[in-house]
Amino acid sequence: MRESDLLSHIHARSRSLSAQFPNVLLGPGDDGALIRIGDDPSPHTLIVTVDHLIEGRHYLAGRTPIDLIARKAIARSVSDIAAMGGSPRWSLATAALPPSFTQADELFDAMHRWAAHFNCPLVGGDVAILPPPSTPTASSPLVLTVTAGGEPHPSRGPVLRSGVQPGDAIFITGRLGGSFGPDGLGRHLTFEPRLSEARSLCDLLGPDLHAMIDVSDGPGRDAARLAEASGVRITLDAALLPLADGTTDSRSALQDGEDYELLFAAPRGTNLPPACPRTGTLITRIGNAELGSGCPVLTPQGLLDGAATGWDHIN
Amino acid sequence: MRESDLLSHIHARSRSLSAQFPNVLLGPGDDGALIRIGDDPSPHTLIVTVDHLIEGRHYLAGRTPIDLIARKAIARSVSDIAAMGGSPRWSLATAALPPSFTQADELFDAMHRWAAHFNCPLVGGDVAILPPPSTPTASSPLVLTVTAGGEPHPSRGPVLRSGVQPGDAIFITGRLGGSFGPDGLGRHLTFEPRLSEARSLCDLLGPDLHAMIDVSDGPGRDAARLAEASGVRITLDAALLPLADGTTDSRSALQDGEDYELLFAAPRGTNLPPACPRTGTLITRIGNAELGSGCPVLTPQGLLDGAATGWDHIN
Repeated sequence: MRESDLLSHIHARSRSLSAQFPNVLLGPGDDGALIRIGDDPSPHTLIVTVDHLIEGRHYLAGRTPIDLIARKAIARSVSDIAAMGGSPRWSLATAALPPSFTQADELFDAMHRWAAHFNCPLVGGDVAILPPPSTPTASSPLVLTVTAGGEPHPSRGPVLRSGVQPGDAIFITGRLGGSFGPDGLGRHLTFEPRLSEARSLCDLLGPDLHAMIDVSDGPGRDAARLAEASGVRITLDAALLPLADGTTDSRSALQDGEDYELLFAAPRGTNLPPACPRTGTLITRIGNAELGSGCPVLTPQGLLDGAATGWDHIN
Repeated sequence: MRESDLLSHIHARSRSLSAQFPNVLLGPGDDGALIRIGDDPSPHTLIVTVDHLIEGRHYLAGRTPIDLIARKAIARSVSDIAAMGGSPRWSLATAALPPSFTQADELFDAMHRWAAHFNCPLVGGDVAILPPPSTPTASSPLVLTVTAGGEPHPSRGPVLRSGVQPGDAIFITGRLGGSFGPDGLGRHLTFEPRLSEARSLCDLLGPDLHAMIDVSDGPGRDAARLAEASGVRITLDAALLPLADGTTDSRSALQDGEDYELLFAAPRGTNLPPACPRTGTLITRIGNAELGSGCPVLTPQGLLDGAATGWDHIN
């Protein structure tokens, strides 16, 4: 069972949603959904998204500080709002706790604090205690979810995955690779959601910011998602991937995932600064879009299929 | 570890949220949170809520049809929107699946269908596969969450738990008790969220609909929540509780929980019809509010503490 197959099925089935429910501006398949709130003459657009954080899946059981578990749970959903060029405004959290879990208050305090830090206050949630495991020596994992709501950039509006045009260049913020760290306590727990960078890109590029996604599963896999959503072919050059400190090989940058950088498209020839004017975060051109389909990645070992690189979950 | 203690801690800590984030009209502690969307002159109010549905906790493992698991997951969150007098507009779902779970497509199709049925289209979500259990013979439970968004009644506005006034009468919709059913497949899986009843009450009573909550943990426990949120004393008379078919004892109506009926407050002397004009659902007066605190329940066995009746989860 692959998560990506399950998600494809959901997206296919949900395509007609907007016809039946006109307040649904965008259903499943992007970093967030878009809801119209209110009617003319002053409707508003709401961005909503939800993500899991599961013990043993998204962080190492037993050795990850509670504060960083809380931080990552909030930051993952905030990053999805950033990927649409939006600003987070509120969040809801759920926690399904193993019966033996004793740090619930500490966890919720930390989630509350991080949510406020990212301007995404925790306004509610639900707590449930998992049933005792079927085998006395077994344990169930802690399962967290965070729903985040936000608003799009006031002039650019929401930035979707589906807007890449043939002739666009493909860019990425920051540096890639090695996010897990040697001990599992690396950048995947402490990344900064690219809210300021997203806002700067919307300010700088306006409608020329054609499409955007946050890179959680590796740049090849996520570029393949942009290509598929937009009906174009995206070619990445692995030699151009900006490598994180300690990462010496573009294979690691392609494969490791959990970078939470922004991958975006703008017309070739767009004059972008080499770094975000607000934060100094690097901006690097790593590929091109053209007519066609798929996402080849040029590597020293030859062409790879971007969709087959990076991170998926098979069981 | 009690869920109710964990929630009290969260509510206490979140009280200052609105001062720091003016778009947060109401934080944790009610059936949903309230968010202001947009600014004057035409702000809108968004109701958001999230609930779990966990295998072995909220339904029997192994013998509950997938369709009813999906239905209950959606209906629980829709019921929270009803409890604020609102109309659901969209939902997000998450599913943390045991590795051995093979009915994911069927489950998501059913959730999609029920969400549309309740006018609460599923616009996105997240799927994750749980890590393999630590002991080969053990299994992790399926963990679902549903976030629902809605809008308040256009003229009454959102109905909170905190509006009960001394001198109010306390009413309940429908009938109580035995929701689990003899085989675990009873009304707790098939209840109708009281959306139409909530709308009728808002239409009929307007500002005289002082407060409302949906009864998931028994009428005593949930009336105690109304009393605490409102700073009043609520007295219920167990002899007045309307009993569901097959329920012969008010103890069952107090204790069983999972009725998802609406418990609400309106001034004594309010002229309410004996049933909802839209649906025919029974409306019964079951108690009174006055100055004071707490929630005594008059029973043939003497006075009970309402907060100690019903359903909590201790591990």
